[in-house]
Amino acid sequence: MEKERLLAALAEDLERIESALSAVQASQVPFINEVSHYILFAGGKRLRPLLTVLCARLLGYEDPDIYHLSVLFEYLHAATLLHDDVVDGAEFRRGRKAAHNLWGNQATILVGDYLYARALRIAVEKGNFEVLKVVTQTTLLMSEGEVLQLLNVDNTGLTEAEYEEVIFRKTAALMAAACECGGIMAGAGPEERRELYRFGRHLGLAFQITDDLLDYLGVSAETGKDLGTDFKEGKVTLPLIYALEVAGDGDRSRLLALLRDPESTPESFHEAREIIARLGGFEKTRRRAEREVEAALSALSRFPENPTRRLLEDLTRYILVRRR
Amino acid sequence: MEKERLLAALAEDLERIESALSAVQASQVPFINEVSHYILFAGGKRLRPLLTVLCARLLGYEDPDIYHLSVLFEYLHAATLLHDDVVDGAEFRRGRKAAHNLWGNQATILVGDYLYARALRIAVEKGNFEVLKVVTQTTLLMSEGEVLQLLNVDNTGLTEAEYEEVIFRKTAALMAAACECGGIMAGAGPEERRELYRFGRHLGLAFQITDDLLDYLGVSAETGKDLGTDFKEGKVTLPLIYALEVAGDGDRSRLLALLRDPESTPESFHEAREIIARLGGFEKTRRRAEREVEAALSALSRFPENPTRRLLEDLTRYILVRRR
Repeated sequence: MEKERLLAALAEDLERIESALSAVQASQVPFINEVSHYILFAGGKRLRPLLTVLCARLLGYEDPDIYHLSVLFEYLHAATLLHDDVVDGAEFRRGRKAAHNLWGNQATILVGDYLYARALRIAVEKGNFEVLKVVTQTTLLMSEGEVLQLLNVDNTGLTEAEYEEVIFRKTAALMAAACECGGIMAGAGPEERRELYRFGRHLGLAFQITDDLLDYLGVSAETGKDLGTDFKEGKVTLPLIYALEVAGDGDRSRLLALLRDPESTPESFHEAREIIARLGGFEKTRRRAEREVEAALSALSRFPENPTRRLLEDLTRYILVRRR
Repeated sequence: MEKERLLAALAEDLERIESALSAVQASQVPFINEVSHYILFAGGKRLRPLLTVLCARLLGYEDPDIYHLSVLFEYLHAATLLHDDVVDGAEFRRGRKAAHNLWGNQATILVGDYLYARALRIAVEKGNFEVLKVVTQTTLLMSEGEVLQLLNVDNTGLTEAEYEEVIFRKTAALMAAACECGGIMAGAGPEERRELYRFGRHLGLAFQITDDLLDYLGVSAETGKDLGTDFKEGKVTLPLIYALEVAGDGDRSRLLALLRDPESTPESFHEAREIIARLGGFEKTRRRAEREVEAALSALSRFPENPTRRLLEDLTRYILVRRR
């Protein structure tokens, strides 16, 4: 299904998610609302709230209250984006200046804390204890994932399994939680909850692996980020891991030298990209992402076939072809 | 009651709080435990968990489970300390290097996020929804307080009421929540909960006002912090607010010049301190702290007289004479 048809099918849900986001009680501190608004309404894909809404509907839950709950996942996501941007020193985010470049690191950290607190507050307002359990467990995993990612900067010995552990925690765990919480609201049993979590986990892994690919192969004007930032920051992702697995001594030492070069230029990034391409790193990464999509679809296949399941399937497949 | 007798009376509770802190499930990421341990076991006063334990006991609740719940407030406090240290660029904390000077800003931000998530997780494990409501509302207030404090740097027009709003949010709200949650566990009714919150609020205000006094008048070897850091960072606190209220043009412009001096030296801090002292700023601040202690005691007086109430009263009075 091409992007336009998918977006049309999701249009009403996306609109209601936007309304729910706007309806969240503002802070009494106008400055906090200014920064929050900047990060929350910067063209985010709303993938996490969508997953909650659709997974609830998959099990027959149609209460409009689900939109209000779903935005807690967007708040959590925005909170991590703010802290990420400070930690990474990123210059751009979604084609605009990163928040810390406008308001400084201090305010960006603290507004991140605020958004995080607001997300938990929404979860409490909904009054569902199972949702709260999942959400707090997820925030623990996410903060661990961020720390692991930081500790692994320049770690060229990172294995595929270690990489998966990092991206599960920092990205996939939140999507899995968004899916499971949709199910919880719909009264899902343990088995259904497990399958929804598994669906979200594989979808999240596919999403992050594709993200890592886009950092090498994307088009900056589409992704809204500078190309090659992961590489410049010494973040070791799957294309590089796969390339290093099969590299001879010459390619290997050249790749490591390029990665560790403190004066990294666009040329050095382009050279690294060519070596990785030649060694099949991108090819193999894409296949891995495809396998994750297959696994996500297989989790979905446990649910009765209905229009919502087909929509989730289309959304899952779109992960692989997305350009931002 | 002098400090030693108070500490003796609290010794068993303090010991059980330490055990509960050590018993909190560690992270699977050793580095997180290293940083967490550094900030959590750095000679903190454990005031917040103590308040929870004692307020529960005040209403007759003696279940040892209260210790486990109480440490969530120490975790929340530690999380804000880590983010504070990054935001303030503080060099020392409790007589030791601030965490960000050992592990860098990035790791310090992320471990702060972890401690915050861990605190919420403890609240969820206890399974009390009212506690969760109070805790999440408090974290919202706290993050707003930190932002307000940042926005008010160098704001020499800050009024006493605005100052109170900031310190309520950044310090007193957490102590008030610790007290109220002790009451909730003890099955307190709405009126009792309100009084416990009021007690914690006034105690917290007295605590922070004393803290701000210690930043001017303390002894660095006792407070574990550099003296005059607030002033150097442009933080406008009560002694300065009171001094500016009554200052003539000469004193006023001299104080403002000293506060805004980017090349601030120990001498300029000493000069400012003398002007504030001469204008009665410290005197009046101390009286305000005393009034907060009186208000806290008045809230306590609504509860039946028992040994726990007397202990809380002693603890409250000690706030005023503490030296760190």
